[in-house]
Formats: sequence, structure tokens, C-alpha cells
Amino acid sequence: MGSEDKILSWICRFTVITAFFLVGFIIGWFARPTTVNHGKTSKSFLRDFMDEMQAENIKQHLRKFTRLPHLAGTQQNLILAEQIRDEWIKFGLDTVHLVPYDVLLSYPNKTNPNYISIVDNLGKEVFNTSLSEPVPEGYEHVTDIVPPYSAFSPKGQPEGDLVYVNYGRTEDFFQLEREMGINCTGKIVIARYGKIFRGNKVKNAMLAGAKGIILFSDPADYCAEGVEPYPKGWNLPGGGAQRGNVLNLNGAGDPLTPGYPAKEYTYRYPADAGVGLPKIPVHPIGYYDAIHLLKNMGGHLAPDNWKGALNVSYRIGPGFVDGFEQNKVRMNIHTNNQVTRIYNVIGWIRGAVEPDRYIILGGHRDAWVFGGIDPTSGAAVVHENVRAAGKLMNRGWRPRRTLIFASWDAEEFGLLGSTEWAEDNARILQERAVAYINADSAIEGMYTLRVDCTPSLHTIVYDITKKIPSPEVGEEKMSLYDSWHKRDNWTEGNVPRISKLGSGSDFEAYFIRLGITSGRARYTKNSKTERYSSYPVYHSVYETYEIVERFYDPSFRRLEAVARVRGGLIFSLADSVILPLDCEEYASSLNRYANSIHQLAQKHPDAMQQYHVSFDSLFSAVKNFTDAARDFHQRLNQLDTSDAMAVRMVNDQLMYLERAFIDPLGLPGRPFYRHIIFAPSSHNKYAGESFPGIYDALFDIENAVDPQKSWDEVKRQISIAAFTVNAAAVTLMPVV
Amino acid sequence: MGSEDKILSWICRFTVITAFFLVGFIIGWFARPTTVNHGKTSKSFLRDFMDEMQAENIKQHLRKFTRLPHLAGTQQNLILAEQIRDEWIKFGLDTVHLVPYDVLLSYPNKTNPNYISIVDNLGKEVFNTSLSEPVPEGYEHVTDIVPPYSAFSPKGQPEGDLVYVNYGRTEDFFQLEREMGINCTGKIVIARYGKIFRGNKVKNAMLAGAKGIILFSDPADYCAEGVEPYPKGWNLPGGGAQRGNVLNLNGAGDPLTPGYPAKEYTYRYPADAGVGLPKIPVHPIGYYDAIHLLKNMGGHLAPDNWKGALNVSYRIGPGFVDGFEQNKVRMNIHTNNQVTRIYNVIGWIRGAVEPDRYIILGGHRDAWVFGGIDPTSGAAVVHENVRAAGKLMNRGWRPRRTLIFASWDAEEFGLLGSTEWAEDNARILQERAVAYINADSAIEGMYTLRVDCTPSLHTIVYDITKKIPSPEVGEEKMSLYDSWHKRDNWTEGNVPRISKLGSGSDFEAYFIRLGITSGRARYTKNSKTERYSSYPVYHSVYETYEIVERFYDPSFRRLEAVARVRGGLIFSLADSVILPLDCEEYASSLNRYANSIHQLAQKHPDAMQQYHVSFDSLFSAVKNFTDAARDFHQRLNQLDTSDAMAVRMVNDQLMYLERAFIDPLGLPGRPFYRHIIFAPSSHNKYAGESFPGIYDALFDIENAVDPQKSWDEVKRQISIAAFTVNAAAVTLMPVV
Repeated sequence: MGSEDKILSWICRFTVITAFFLVGFIIGWFARPTTVNHGKTSKSFLRDFMDEMQAENIKQHLRKFTRLPHLAGTQQNLILAEQIRDEWIKFGLDTVHLVPYDVLLSYPNKTNPNYISIVDNLGKEVFNTSLSEPVPEGYEHVTDIVPPYSAFSPKGQPEGDLVYVNYGRTEDFFQLEREMGINCTGKIVIARYGKIFRGNKVKNAMLAGAKGIILFSDPADYCAEGVEPYPKGWNLPGGGAQRGNVLNLNGAGDPLTPGYPAKEYTYRYPADAGVGLPKIPVHPIGYYDAIHLLKNMGGHLAPDNWKGALNVSYRIGPGFVDGFEQNKVRMNIHTNNQVTRIYNVIGWIRGAVEPDRYIILGGHRDAWVFGGIDPTSGAAVVHENVRAAGKLMNRGWRPRRTLIFASWDAEEFGLLGSTEWAEDNARILQERAVAYINADSAIEGMYTLRVDCTPSLHTIVYDITKKIPSPEVGEEKMSLYDSWHKRDNWTEGNVPRISKLGSGSDFEAYFIRLGITSGRARYTKNSKTERYSSYPVYHSVYETYEIVERFYDPSFRRLEAVARVRGGLIFSLADSVILPLDCEEYASSLNRYANSIHQLAQKHPDAMQQYHVSFDSLFSAVKNFTDAARDFHQRLNQLDTSDAMAVRMVNDQLMYLERAFIDPLGLPGRPFYRHIIFAPSSHNKYAGESFPGIYDALFDIENAVDPQKSWDEVKRQISIAAFTVNAAAVTLMPVV
Repeated sequence: MGSEDKILSWICRFTVITAFFLVGFIIGWFARPTTVNHGKTSKSFLRDFMDEMQAENIKQHLRKFTRLPHLAGTQQNLILAEQIRDEWIKFGLDTVHLVPYDVLLSYPNKTNPNYISIVDNLGKEVFNTSLSEPVPEGYEHVTDIVPPYSAFSPKGQPEGDLVYVNYGRTEDFFQLEREMGINCTGKIVIARYGKIFRGNKVKNAMLAGAKGIILFSDPADYCAEGVEPYPKGWNLPGGGAQRGNVLNLNGAGDPLTPGYPAKEYTYRYPADAGVGLPKIPVHPIGYYDAIHLLKNMGGHLAPDNWKGALNVSYRIGPGFVDGFEQNKVRMNIHTNNQVTRIYNVIGWIRGAVEPDRYIILGGHRDAWVFGGIDPTSGAAVVHENVRAAGKLMNRGWRPRRTLIFASWDAEEFGLLGSTEWAEDNARILQERAVAYINADSAIEGMYTLRVDCTPSLHTIVYDITKKIPSPEVGEEKMSLYDSWHKRDNWTEGNVPRISKLGSGSDFEAYFIRLGITSGRARYTKNSKTERYSSYPVYHSVYETYEIVERFYDPSFRRLEAVARVRGGLIFSLADSVILPLDCEEYASSLNRYANSIHQLAQKHPDAMQQYHVSFDSLFSAVKNFTDAARDFHQRLNQLDTSDAMAVRMVNDQLMYLERAFIDPLGLPGRPFYRHIIFAPSSHNKYAGESFPGIYDALFDIENAVDPQKSWDEVKRQISIAAFTVNAAAVTLMPVV
């Protein structure tokens, strides 16, 4: 070859080599992933996770955890905490710790028992209520069963005439005072359990001037038709009674350290300055005892709807009928409040991609006695969730975000363990918590699923339940979603019913104080046909393992289904690249709530006009929110999910949406209830109220002393609601 | 070649080509950035940015913005807002908008002027104070110069004996009541301006029972030695007086809409229920007028340290000396409060990498009259900052994070524009705001730099000032840092002095309510030798362009230096890959504050012992914080800054550190002051107090009515402080 040829040849070779280099470079450039691709395998891991959770395991967990009482603050409950910690470590969590707090608890005096007496005109106790419940078969050897009592009742031995106040609701006292003309001042009142949280009954009795309150379980409210009392069936026996705290904490947590975690160094208010402590003695009794108090009562005959199912005449009082009119009722209460150490168990799985984003699954461990249903049906499910997550980790899975598992203590004493931990970690939770899923009792009935959650979770709840088989016999090919839908259709769209969150369980501080997306799921009764409150043996000694195993869920498939719902939720929240939260569902819920509160106000058309009350600003804000939510999801559909920063930004918008509804100033008189859209009802802690600020301002406004001032407060609350919804809408708009 | 050779040759070629392909692939793989690499060019853009800001431009901006008065709520100030908006758009910001609010402002009655009289025993006004200040040369044609008044004074014509209360500080009233035995109830008090915020003087007078308060400028406090009154020098003329609001808002913003933005639909409290409005008439006078009130006063001779520099005897009162004892003082105040529309100008530069992270530069635009110093020396600097940022964008720069520029309205009426915007945007600011840099008056003296900021900004302030030349003649080769260090060395380490943030300017809502990292910088006097308050012509008609151009900064190089400090800060905060915040500086400041508050408590060793008051928990928390901060920065040094998610996570920790000091419950009685480490002093809004909860609990505790209760409150506040510092420490620890 000539030198020109050689040069040409070299140029050729060089060109070819360069071309291949370039091809390589380009392929290399584009082959390199710029974000961690996690989405593809997540789905199959979800399947594995679901399959891993099994009825038989849950049964074993429940059996193991319900042999002994686990009252908060006792050695037995500490031992259980240590056992759970050790097993969670064994299951494979990254870290698990006990986290202690020193909170105010309340116990009966062991040597000086609480009871109620009827005393004659000589002051002699002619009848005394029982000191304890008959212990169920198989548990006779168990010591340390706390007798029925009202936790945090002050000590005292008030004596007086008895007045029957029905359920002790606000409307019951209104009826007593306004229609029947009965004044409760200086009286002892007796209220039946049911309808509302017992603490609200006590508060109402205090406001009415009563000097003591007796709570009893009426068969009308604690027995299902055609069912035998336990152990033959699942109804409440006549000797059973409902324990429970009678605080009005309004979300404060430990009564002595409101707003701050109850650590060793924490300042504590003096005992008499504690938040929400009742000022009058309170005591619960069963219906065998109640008969004796009620059977000779005097005064008006109770209206029909005040009559329970006992074989007595249901009179209002005050006092007793002829022949017994010298009698009084005396309460003998010796319960002690004491600062006591409690222990949460907190376990972590570090997120692989976004370790600073937290999904929390928490439920309580403490029980009044055996806690067969409350809480251990829930705690057994959490245990299975943790076990299944550990199994997945052994197979190489690690969630995109961090998972936190919590076994709370002292829920029964006012949500104390969960609230103290929320207070302790408020800063990091505020910045990093994506969602909180609650895991209290997993079953309270034998009919279908019950879900209460924030609106943005609706869609993922439906999606998850479509992936889970129905646990019901005869529905082997049906999904849980379809079974649920068939049994409890919701008028708000052709979907299964989902309700608002109220309170009475550990999500409260997370949702209503901190504004963290929250939800809960359990198996429930048929609310249309089963009219009893809660479930009959609630908070009695008869909440055993056996009641679940014999009656509520013999196959443990209902608990398995609940485990899969809760587990599926935390899995999806932790592992989806884009958070599975639906802002448009929030928009449509806001729209319903706005219409509903507006309708309530419209019951006073004249006053609305006279005081120039308008809901326009609220409707306009809901419209803004609706538009912003729609646009947000449209942008989300077009998002390049390989762009890590873009994904993080929209996820932050989704995560912080619930936070946007928090008003740091809180609701009037309730500084720890800060969610402007949802709060526990001021008249029943268990129920959720939407636009609670407006609702409370409107409450009983027709009887307002100063209507101008009251309607001004309505206007102020509408203004706050409108601003908050608008502000939340802005968080969904493009960030610049 | 044989076929074997050919094959060999092809194998060779193939190998070479494959090798080059692989080399290309590998280079391509690694050459592709997995995050936007911005750091390299950021430094040179910072240099460009600094150089772009020029004295001559600032001079022109100042000249242009100070020709007319720009009182909040006036047409002139709206026109200026529109002009600024239009120029910012022209400079190249992405978007600029006017953002209106309807807030409570206060103006004198134009037809019924305010003044003070001396009245004789027939009620005849024998002396009246002047109705306005002599207008400076060149401004005689200007209409709409608001006369000196105390904004938000109620209307009223109280008449009574006069009592001189020195500066009207808490300690002055203590001295009057406890040592001199003088009761101010029903009296009109006269206080000299200076030392503390005027609103605190008014509050103290109200607490003392006074029925009116006169504020005067004493030459001892408003004249520098050897300086002529304006226009010959920069001292306050005898006919000049200090305007200013006399509110005690404690961070509430608009008095009628505390906690919420003053929008059209917002609920407003009735005028008499507004937050922080004074209940007694207030009026300011100059020293020519003050002489007439003071010269014949009776009662005690004032102690030496109460004597100002007027040629009068400085007596305390009450009343007047012989021959004048029939005289009284009458205040004639007709000022009106009215809800008025104000306008913020808000401009945005969208961040290139993290648009959802905001750095804010804000300063007010409204002035009492011409605002030559306050605020326009600052507003001119902001204008130059914006212009320079626009220039950089023309050259291809775009900051990593979003920049927000704000021209606030109605700062002089209680920080209203900035606070309403903070309330309006609280949700997104809480989640997304990295830092707020304040831009009020850029100069108040001719000596050196003055910086007040949160501790985590110390290091970046020092770094930035090392890159800026000194503006002082004779220091041409010296950096601003060295000049500043030479003139104002700080005993806390061999560095220039940096002080705590107090209040009295627009950073308040951002720093003390929302917990956003904040700082401010300006040029100041020599605090060791120049003892006058603020600067002499403060809030008078003599704050003109000319006073800056002739006396304060003839070369405009001092303003240029301030522009570069402020600009350099926002540039670094917006453009650094890792946020330039120093947690270890926060730790060492916390340590100093803890020692200092402990020393204050130690003044009562017996009570400390008796009531078991311990600071151990606080010191332990500071130790935890110090360890966490050190470990955090050690981890930060090893961080792979090419890992986008890891960078985002540590930046979130840095950003949210300041937020961790916010207590949603606020300080006692001051719900909008929520920062546990810093708050404006309860006795002087201008001053910053560290651990303000503990400080206030300890204040005057030796005279406590119920020492047990008072020391309990000290213990509670120590507990809150310890918890908060611990909680902040946790935010710096690894996220799992």
C-alpha cells in the first residue's frame, strides 16, 4: 500500500474505532440509571407479603398474648413489652427499643375496694354492689385482675338522691333540665353506658352540678338478641361491667405534662391541676347491680326512648319511691392516681431510598384484663405484620421508605403511650411522617370490614381490599372489597362505606394534633341490624382468647383479612414510588362536609340573614381546592418518575397535604385538637365531626345568651375554615 | 494473508473495536452526571454577582425612591409598588405580583390636628406644641407629609398632672413606685425616647395607671456630640419628632385578624378588641416643645441618670412648681384607626434543581415620610440585589433553589405586610423555606458592619464578608471582614461581633413565629463611643436622600458593601449544593445562653435550693445537641454529594433545624412568639432575649407575690427549654 492508502486505511480504522467508542459511550450514557428503580419488583413483594400473613399465626400470637392480664404500668405488661421487642428483633427489624414515659395512671385501692351502696335513713348500707366480676372458667388461678372501676375517678364518698340521666348525653341533660325541669345539682346521677364516650357523660354530669356519677351497662345496649351471655355466647353477663378512663383530655396525653413528653426531667403540674381529670367520683356497675339501684327509683317515669331492657320501671328520680324514700345512694371510691412508668415498643425498618420518610403502624398492648379483643386481636395482627415484613427482608426486600412499628402502652388511660411518643418526636414526625395506620382491636363483630380514614386514603383502601380474598364462608371466590361492598354500600358513590376518624384510639395525636395522614381498619358488626354499643363484653373480664376463638373468628380468617388490609396499606405507602394518596377524594369529601355544615346553619335562616352569615368563602375555598387537586393529579400523570427530585417534590406535596389542615392555634378551648377539617365531637369523643370549629359554634345556638356574639363566632370559624382550605389548595399548586 | 491470518486479523480488529466500545461505554457510564452538577460554576457566578452590585446604581435607586413620601396605605406607596413590580419584571424575575391585604392602619385627622397643651386653672391653653416639623429645604412643595404622631393612639383629651418617667422602662417605673413612692395613676406621663421600643413605654404607662403618655426626643439621646442639626449635620433639629406605632402586637400582625391573613373574606374582630392597641392617648414631640413641658415641673429632682441634655432642671413631678402649680397638661388626640389596603410586591426566581426550596430576601417599602434611611436605604439595596440577579440570569445562571424577593408594606404599622404574607403562606413556608434575609435600613451609622442572625448563619456571614472589600477610605486592600473585625471584635472568639435577632423589623414572623433561619445586616455606628439611640433623625421628616448622600455614605460604598453581604447570603443559601448552615455554631451559642440564664438564676441561691430548681436537664440537653451537631457535620464531611437523595436529606435536616426550636404552644401569653431560644424581650421589643421563657419567669422574682408558684413556673420553663433543645438534637441525628 502507498503511504496515502496507509493513511486512508488508518483514517478508516480510526473512524470505525471512534464510531464504536461513541456507540459505546452513548449506550453507556443512557444505560446508567439515574434513579433507583424499585417499582417493578414492589408489586410481587406485595403479593408475597399478603400471602405471608396467615390466620394460624395470628391465632398463635393471640393465644400467647392473652394468658395473663396486661394492665398498663404493671410488671406483666413490661414483660410482654420485652417479649414483643425480642420477637420483633428475631423477626428481622433493624432496631427495636422500649421507650419509657412516666405518666399519671389510676388504680383501685387493693385494700379498700370501690362500691356503691343504698343507705337507709340511719346511714346503714342496705345494699352494696359487687366488688368484682365472676371470673370466667379457666382463669380462676389468675391474680391481678383489676376489678371494674372508672380510671381517674377522684376519691370520695358522696351520698345523695339518685337521678337517671339516660345515656348522659348533652341532649339528655338538656331534656332533663329544659323539658322535665329536673336539676341535678347535688345529686348522684346514674347513666347507662353507650352512644357516647364515657368521659363525655362524666363531663356533662359535672356541668349539671352532680356530685357523683354511676355508669351501668344496660342489656339494651350490651346484649345482642338471641345470644347467650358469655361463656355460652358472646353477650355481657349480668355480673360484668365496663372498665374505662373517664378523662376529658382533648388530646393532651399525660394529664400532668400536656404538650410535652413525660420524661424524668419533665415538669409536672400538681395532681389537682392535671388536664381533664374528673372532679366527681365515678363508678361502673353491671346490670345485676343496676337493677337494685333502679328498681325503687321515684320521680317521673322515663320517656320510652330512655327505657332500657331491665325488668324495672325506669324512673328518672330524684330519689326513691314510697317505702324507700328515706334511702340514699352512697358511692365509696378509693381509687389512687399515681405517676407510673409505661413502655412503648418501637421497631424500625430503615427505608432503602428515602429513609427520612416514615410510615407508622401502631396499636396498643395494654389491656384492662386479658384483652382478648381490645387490644390483643389488634396486637396479634401487628405481630403478624412485623413477622411477614421480616420474612420479606430475608428474601432481599427493603421498603423504599422507613417503616416504624409501635406497641403502645397505656392507651386505656387516655392514649398516653402514643401521645407521649408523638409529643417526644413531634419535630421529626412533622417533617418526615407520611402516614399513621392504627392497629387497635382488629375485630368487634362478625359481619364485614370497617374502615375509618382520612379522605386521601380512600382509593388505596379500595385498591388493597380488591387484592384480598373475603374471609367469609361461602365467599371463597369473592374479594374482600366485593364482600364489604355487598354488605355495606355507601350512598356517596357506589363503593363500600368509609367513615371519618373520630377518636378513642392511638391515632389521635398523629392525625388530629400533628396532621399526619391516618386510617384504621377492623372487622365489625352489621350496623344496620345490630344495635348494641361497641361489642357486649367490651372492657370486661370476659374479653378472653376464647371469645374470639369460639365466636368472633373461629377460623381466624377475619383477623387475617384485617392483617392484610393494614399490612397492605403500610406496604403500599412505604414502597410505592409515588405516594398512593388521592387529593381528589379529599376534595370531594370537603365538598360534602361544606354542604353538610351549611345545611346545619340553614336551620336558622333568619339569624343567618340578620347577622350576615355567609358560607360563600368556604364554598369558594372548596372550589379552589377541587381545582388544585384535579390539576395536581393531571400533572402527576405526566410526571417522569425516573426524575428523583421531581418524584420527591410531588411526594412532599402529597405528604404535607394533611399537615396543611393543621391550625397551630388549635380549636377553641382544645389546643391539642388542631385539625380544622376533623376533630372528635365535643359531645362524644368517639365520633368524628367535620368542620368542628363551625359545628361547635353553631351548637345549641338557638339558645345562645348573646346571639350577636355567638353568630360572630360562627363567622370567625367559617373564615378560619375557608382560609385553611385555601391554604391547603396552595400546597397542591406548582411549587413556584 | 492466509485464511487463518484473516481470521486472526478479524479477531484482532474485533477485539480492538470491542475494547474501544467498552472503553466508550465505561466512560459514558461514568461521565453521565447522576445529579445536576452546579457547584463548579456557582463560585464564579457568586463573583459576578458581587461585582455586578455597584454603589452608583444604589445611589440612583435611592434617589428615585425618596422624592415623595411613601406612607403605607397611600396612593403614593401603591404607585411605588407598581413601579418596583415593573422594574423587577424588567430585571428578569420569573414572576412578580402585588399581593394586597386589608389591615388596620392609623392616621391623624387632617382637619383636627393632634397636639399637647399646658392649660391654666381656667382651662385655657397657654402653650401648644407644634403641629408639624419644619420641612427641609427642597421639599417645601411636597404635600402629604404626615405630621409626627403615635400610630394607633386612641382618640382622647386627657388632662392632668405630669410625671416624668425617664425612658419609661420597666425598671424606671419600678424606681418611681418602689423607691420614690410616686403613683402614676390618673397622671399624664412624659417619657424620653430611647433605650427601648416605644410600644413598651406605652404598655408600662398603662400598667402604671397613667391616662396618657407623651414621648419626646431628648438631645442626650438624639444628638451626637460635635454634630450640627440637619441640614448642616445629621443631628435631630429641635423641631423634629419621632413618628412610630405604639402597638404591643407580640407578633400578631394585623390587630384585627391575629393568626390569619387579612383578606377580604377574613373575619375581623371589632375595633375595640384588636390585639395590642393602646388604651391611652400617646403623642410624640421634639425637644423644643419638650422644654416647655419640662421646665416648670415640680416634685422630686430627677436622679442624675434620669437627666437628659436640655437646659431644664429635670424634675419628676407630679405637677408644676410654684407659680405654675395650677397648670395641667392636656393631650388633644384625634387620630383614626381604619382598615386600609396595603400591597406587598413579591418576585420569584424559580430554582433549577430544587424549586420547592425557598430563600427569601424581604424588606419594607413604606416610610413615615421620605424614608431616606428607613427603609429606602434598604429598599434601594434590594433593588440592586434583584437587578444583579437578573443580570446573572441573562448570562445563563439560575439558582439551585427558588429565590423570593419581597417589598413589604406597612412595616411601620406593626410589621403588617410581612406578617400577613407569612400567615397567608405559613403552610408552604413551614415545609419549604430555607432562610429569610431581612432588608430594612441598610445604614444607621458610618463606622462598620452590624449583623444580627441566628447562630447557624455565623459561618457563612464570615465567609461572605471575607470576599467583600471594605468600603472605608484607607482600607482599600482590606476585606470587609477584617475591617469589621478590627472595629468590633467579639469576646466570644476572635471574630467580628454578631448579635441575636430582636424584633422591630419584618423578619419577626419568619424567625420567631415560623422558625425559619433568619439574619440581617446593615452598616452601623460605633456602639462603644456613640451613645445616642438609633440614629438622630430616625422617623423624622429629615430622613432624606440628602442625609445619606451628604453624611452617611457619600460614595455609596457602604451601601454597596451591605448589598454584597445580603446578596452574598441569599446567593450562597440558594446555590450551594449543601446548605451553608453551621449547627456547631448553634451548639456553642446554646451553651452560652444556658450558662447566662443559669447565672441569672444563681442570683437567688437560697430560693434555688428551697424550691429545688436545677438547670441540669438544660445543660444535659445542650450537651446532647453539641454532640449531635458535631457528629452531623462529621457525617456531612464524608457525604457523597453526587447522591441527590442523600444531599436532599441532609439539607432537610439543616433546613428544619431552626423549625425544631418552635413550640406550637408559644411563650406564655405570647402565642405568636413560638421560638424557645429567641424572642423579643418582654420589656423591649427591639432586643432579643435568649431562653425567653425562663428569663421572663425569673424576672423580678425577688418580688413575687407567690414565690412557690413563680419558681414552679421557672422549673416548667427550664423543662420546656430542655425538651426543645433535646428534640432539636434528635433532628440532627441519623434519620433512622
